[in-house]
Amino acid sequence: MASWFAIPKNSPFSLANIPFGIISSANTPSRVAAIAIGDHALNLSVFAASGGFSQLPAIQSHLSVFSQPTLNAFAALGRPVHRQVREYIQSVFRADTPLPQILKDNGALQKDALLPLSDVTNHVPMQIGDYTDFYAGLNHAYNVGVLFRGPDNALQPNYKHLPVAYHSRASSVVTSGTPINRPNGQILTNPTADPKVPTFSPCKKLDIELELAAFVSRPNNLGHPVPVTEAEDHIFGLVLMNDWSARDIQAWEYVPLGPFNAKNFATTITPWVVLLDALEPFRSAGLEPGDRDSLLPYLQEKKAANVYDIPLEVEITNAGGQPTLISQSNAKNLLYSFPQMLAHHTITGCNMNPGDLLGSGTISGTEPKTQGSLLEQTNGKSPIKLADGSERLFLEDGDTIVLRGKAGAEGSYVGFGDCTGTILPAVKLSF
Amino acid sequence: MASWFAIPKNSPFSLANIPFGIISSANTPSRVAAIAIGDHALNLSVFAASGGFSQLPAIQSHLSVFSQPTLNAFAALGRPVHRQVREYIQSVFRADTPLPQILKDNGALQKDALLPLSDVTNHVPMQIGDYTDFYAGLNHAYNVGVLFRGPDNALQPNYKHLPVAYHSRASSVVTSGTPINRPNGQILTNPTADPKVPTFSPCKKLDIELELAAFVSRPNNLGHPVPVTEAEDHIFGLVLMNDWSARDIQAWEYVPLGPFNAKNFATTITPWVVLLDALEPFRSAGLEPGDRDSLLPYLQEKKAANVYDIPLEVEITNAGGQPTLISQSNAKNLLYSFPQMLAHHTITGCNMNPGDLLGSGTISGTEPKTQGSLLEQTNGKSPIKLADGSERLFLEDGDTIVLRGKAGAEGSYVGFGDCTGTILPAVKLSF
Repeated sequence: MASWFAIPKNSPFSLANIPFGIISSANTPSRVAAIAIGDHALNLSVFAASGGFSQLPAIQSHLSVFSQPTLNAFAALGRPVHRQVREYIQSVFRADTPLPQILKDNGALQKDALLPLSDVTNHVPMQIGDYTDFYAGLNHAYNVGVLFRGPDNALQPNYKHLPVAYHSRASSVVTSGTPINRPNGQILTNPTADPKVPTFSPCKKLDIELELAAFVSRPNNLGHPVPVTEAEDHIFGLVLMNDWSARDIQAWEYVPLGPFNAKNFATTITPWVVLLDALEPFRSAGLEPGDRDSLLPYLQEKKAANVYDIPLEVEITNAGGQPTLISQSNAKNLLYSFPQMLAHHTITGCNMNPGDLLGSGTISGTEPKTQGSLLEQTNGKSPIKLADGSERLFLEDGDTIVLRGKAGAEGSYVGFGDCTGTILPAVKLSF
Repeated sequence: MASWFAIPKNSPFSLANIPFGIISSANTPSRVAAIAIGDHALNLSVFAASGGFSQLPAIQSHLSVFSQPTLNAFAALGRPVHRQVREYIQSVFRADTPLPQILKDNGALQKDALLPLSDVTNHVPMQIGDYTDFYAGLNHAYNVGVLFRGPDNALQPNYKHLPVAYHSRASSVVTSGTPINRPNGQILTNPTADPKVPTFSPCKKLDIELELAAFVSRPNNLGHPVPVTEAEDHIFGLVLMNDWSARDIQAWEYVPLGPFNAKNFATTITPWVVLLDALEPFRSAGLEPGDRDSLLPYLQEKKAANVYDIPLEVEITNAGGQPTLISQSNAKNLLYSFPQMLAHHTITGCNMNPGDLLGSGTISGTEPKTQGSLLEQTNGKSPIKLADGSERLFLEDGDTIVLRGKAGAEGSYVGFGDCTGTILPAVKLSF
């Protein structure tokens, strides 16, 4: 799909993508909806106000959704509307656009609505009601299980029957680029002492988790589960996510109710929501599809190709600015799909709202340098060597982590853009 | 404190209380703020619009907060404002009110603004951003620990060093009176089988948890912990809470990340938020204050009396309408205070927003019939006998649970009103 608009060939935001986000800029200080295309954002509030959607009847009575500070209202319009809006925007940008008057031949609107990404500020795209983090990355669950319980008992008995999950913290979900303060907390510096006595300290085992996450669009009422066969139409789209994790805080606090402070200080997401329709060409079978028949019926999907083939990577850049690619994984490495996660989440009758966020869990491969966390790569013992010769067991102050993911090929990539965060020193506290 | 207005002596909403909530009624279908007094609600939107607050300068520029559908904006005004508003309303209702023209001698406003509680609908009083459930009820943690690990290892090593907690589900927090569908889910009917294979079933071990919960008023920014000595001023007030729990779903799903579906289907709270100022006369020492010195400094409070002496009770009414009082406990049975919970929650830098909800954990005593859950009372083995002669290990369809809590004495009770929920059969699902 060629465009009359200059889109760099390597951009994750090709014409095949058209992801949605929330931006502000010097000229438009209030937050509005936008799509990303190449190195630019199209301000949909300005675009709508200038008649940009005049040839799309379905959206006429809903144009105000593009002037809101979150995508919740747009998401709530439902997948058929998202699909029409995305395809309409694609048609506007196509080299052979049937609607040249809208933007191609409208220099004034181009000037007003097309902003270089470097001139816009991205914001968390949705008002997140609840954020749930799953544990559907089989290889991650296995790798971590081996570290804690050995290979024979690595996976808990429930793991292949249900998508394990925990509720996580919505308030501290931030957008790519937000600096991350190393958290303070209780850690056990001497785990073998009896009795065990914790120390107050900055986290010494700060880690990343490479995840995908889905935003919910369509709500369900309390008491009404979402059938797995309908769940896909309740999902707005996906983002890339770094679920920062304080391993030492987690090890001390997590019994018996799970991780809490180890996860509540920050979670970074990419600001552009990639619609499931954009990812449709990259459908792929997940892990162990042959085992699917053993699932209880409420988790059985009709399509075996229920996840996406999206190459993912993790890069660490040290304080000196030198990058090192430390991991390459793929979004195929999930045992459960987002529709399965949503069906399981709601099987009790739990109600979901537009903007709820579902994390996949860490996405690791099986080979060396394919893991989505440092814990798996180093076990806190075998350091990774960076390009500058320094070593890492966990993150150091000044490190910048970049997660990337894009599917497809040059000229038509469907990707998320960078999911970035730089580690700042722990806040100094006095008591 | 006597009132010119008729307040039943047994009411939890005496003139000493003045709790805040959100109501709607036939005459006022949109949601507005109110206070409860005796058997009535005072519609604060109508009261404000009619000059009811004309003698309280501090609130003049904020009167719109009373016409909003949640208390978030009022809560965000801060404790000094809440205190003035509460004391002003008390002065308006006092028998010797210095402001008789406001309401006592204003029959028209009484008619417009004072509504019988039986004529109003209560709503969840705040827009809840995140809901966190703590585990600060020492006796509950011990009792459950004994059931799972025996008396020698009942409490985990971290328990007396930090308030254990998990993130829970905000979307399914409902107000008292909302019926509760028994959840469906995966349960292990034969736990000793190898391999373990779950069954899809309505929950067979549906339980209650008797808790208090605090609503946050004042926000803190990401990266900025709330010191324990300031935490009280970040809390708006308390409600009574029933954290419904599906014990069989929990037992199968909870390793390794904690309870999820076992808790996400519903949590019931009382609709009236009792301000901390109203509870101030009932301050009490918590459990084991002698151990407080062993806490890390960020959790050390200046006041030893950091919890509240509030008698609590649990009643089951069967489908036939016959009530049985099954438990009497007290809010003193907490090892950590709400300020300590908030200080711990934010020590990593986690940001809190107005409307965030913090549950205390189940509040049990040490004697028979003082436990806040059925699990503790019956261990799934020794049934409770109800007044009609029937027995309960866990809840049956048609059972109504009522939690109650009020401090003080006849004529000046400070209480929460009933926290009620009736169990409906599981929704029938077909696949």
